[in-house]
Amino acid sequence: MSREFSVAVVGATGAVGRQIIKLIEERNFPVGDMKLLASERSEGKKVEFAGKRLIVEKLDENSFQGIQIAFFCAGGRLSEEYAPIAAQAGAVCVDKSSVFRMDPDIPLVIPEVNPEALGEFKNTGIVASPNCSTTPMVLALAPMHKQVRVRRVVVSTYQSVSGAGAPAMEELARQTTAIFNGKSYENKVFNHQIAFNCIPHIDQFMANSYTREEMKMVHETRKIMNEPNMLISPTAVRVPVFSCHCESVNVEFEGKMTPDMARDILSNAPGVAVVDDPINNKYPMNITATDSDETFVGRIRVDETVENGLNFWCVTDNLRKGAATNALQIAELLVEKHL
Amino acid sequence: MSREFSVAVVGATGAVGRQIIKLIEERNFPVGDMKLLASERSEGKKVEFAGKRLIVEKLDENSFQGIQIAFFCAGGRLSEEYAPIAAQAGAVCVDKSSVFRMDPDIPLVIPEVNPEALGEFKNTGIVASPNCSTTPMVLALAPMHKQVRVRRVVVSTYQSVSGAGAPAMEELARQTTAIFNGKSYENKVFNHQIAFNCIPHIDQFMANSYTREEMKMVHETRKIMNEPNMLISPTAVRVPVFSCHCESVNVEFEGKMTPDMARDILSNAPGVAVVDDPINNKYPMNITATDSDETFVGRIRVDETVENGLNFWCVTDNLRKGAATNALQIAELLVEKHL
Repeated sequence: MSREFSVAVVGATGAVGRQIIKLIEERNFPVGDMKLLASERSEGKKVEFAGKRLIVEKLDENSFQGIQIAFFCAGGRLSEEYAPIAAQAGAVCVDKSSVFRMDPDIPLVIPEVNPEALGEFKNTGIVASPNCSTTPMVLALAPMHKQVRVRRVVVSTYQSVSGAGAPAMEELARQTTAIFNGKSYENKVFNHQIAFNCIPHIDQFMANSYTREEMKMVHETRKIMNEPNMLISPTAVRVPVFSCHCESVNVEFEGKMTPDMARDILSNAPGVAVVDDPINNKYPMNITATDSDETFVGRIRVDETVENGLNFWCVTDNLRKGAATNALQIAELLVEKHL
Repeated sequence: MSREFSVAVVGATGAVGRQIIKLIEERNFPVGDMKLLASERSEGKKVEFAGKRLIVEKLDENSFQGIQIAFFCAGGRLSEEYAPIAAQAGAVCVDKSSVFRMDPDIPLVIPEVNPEALGEFKNTGIVASPNCSTTPMVLALAPMHKQVRVRRVVVSTYQSVSGAGAPAMEELARQTTAIFNGKSYENKVFNHQIAFNCIPHIDQFMANSYTREEMKMVHETRKIMNEPNMLISPTAVRVPVFSCHCESVNVEFEGKMTPDMARDILSNAPGVAVVDDPINNKYPMNITATDSDETFVGRIRVDETVENGLNFWCVTDNLRKGAATNALQIAELLVEKHL
């Protein structure tokens, strides 16, 4: 007899929450009771799940009684307040926010890369899922790094607006339409116009002039790959696309890594799909990865300017593998191995 | 008494041609006769210039009689065929195409960077203007390189569709509108959908798996900066914006170059404007540079992963300084110093 789990989704009406609900159904996650939670603003909204319309409840201290697995995708403030309460009530929390990721007691997990870290969830009852700009790069780097160590990475991102949530997607759509109609549309989510504009600023600026988004790529990658000194030089940029994050990645290895070796390793790596046939115009793009769970890698080529250098380009659906899919895979692994 | 010059613009109805005509008027270039030329397809079209409507004539072998300065911005094939004919007829040709750029007898000029090369126009009567992805990076690198040598550059571009001409701009507009209306719009200019999609492919692929666009950035930069061995590792990407090319640039210098030194040098560099106040959300974007002639530089910060490393972000209106403005500045310098 298969077991079923009581599940809660915190932030059920957000861009990532909606994806998690969709994926729980798509991937036949063994869910028994399903509870949708959100802040007061979304209380009473209805969300489709498995042919039923569930009503979103207001999150409070008593929301987690009887819950076994709680997905947190409502932003850092709510995670910080309620994940410890949920854990205390006996739920395992899979958290999509950044607040717990660098906590040494809390595992930060990409199931294809560091499943062994997951057991540490017992420390606190919380598992963190990485930032959507970290996951694609790590999925591509980790299998190569296992064969030949990575020395240094220079990465520039091309990130979609869905990473900033559903209101950001609406802002891109409305602002684009307004421009075509000769009207203006005031930006509320972004600091500047996003329609037909690239913004080299995601999350807050830090004292070192990097953004928090950029530093997440550094610190999270090091933690997941268990390489506290890996050299990573990031630039994170928002571009006017709805879905998927693209990344232009320059890697220096400590030994020989040819494009053929890389393609061979990545073709056999879990969660990675190689699309690399430029002569036939095949390389990954946003339209390649949208609604998929893989990280697509292409444009793999020698960087002649450094010893053992490679350039590549990778694309991931940031709402799926960049967020919801990874969280759900963490839950699947918990169910399979630990609960 | 001020001199006036007979000018021809080849490709007068294209995206760059229109900009050149606009700039000749804006910048009071000393034009006497003005002849607009194009292929048969555009013959008879009318173009506004200085309050008059000029009729576009069909380009042929006799088009250049009496012309002193000819701007070529109609693509490589027409430049290759007609620039030598125009030069033979006595015109100095300023060519925006790529066909002559790497010819050792022909100067490739950014007036702020290597004006001294311009005199070589006497060899053939032709001066080449660089690719729109080369110019911004070189404008930022050259003044720093004069103080502290650049060792290696890793650059990823975010290039607008206007670099692919007026039909590409129409394709982005129509395809975006079609998507909002739930319709499809077949791509003709690009190999793939450009609306809400990033395409890591500009110009043809070469044997080394880089695109021609990427290799232009390598070879042209070396020629303009007179550094035949400079190490440059490029990735060129088309993003769904109408105007301006953005570039994420990682530089390794041979000696110390702090962000403050860089800001100081760039603030005093001709053709460059520093916009670098991240705490107040100030950094260059497409909307910063559109319709301007400067290259805007910001996000200047230390790259801690390498000795003497810097990251920066630059943005240029690819139709203006990336194309038309640079061509016109070449002509201005010719008029001032050589004709």
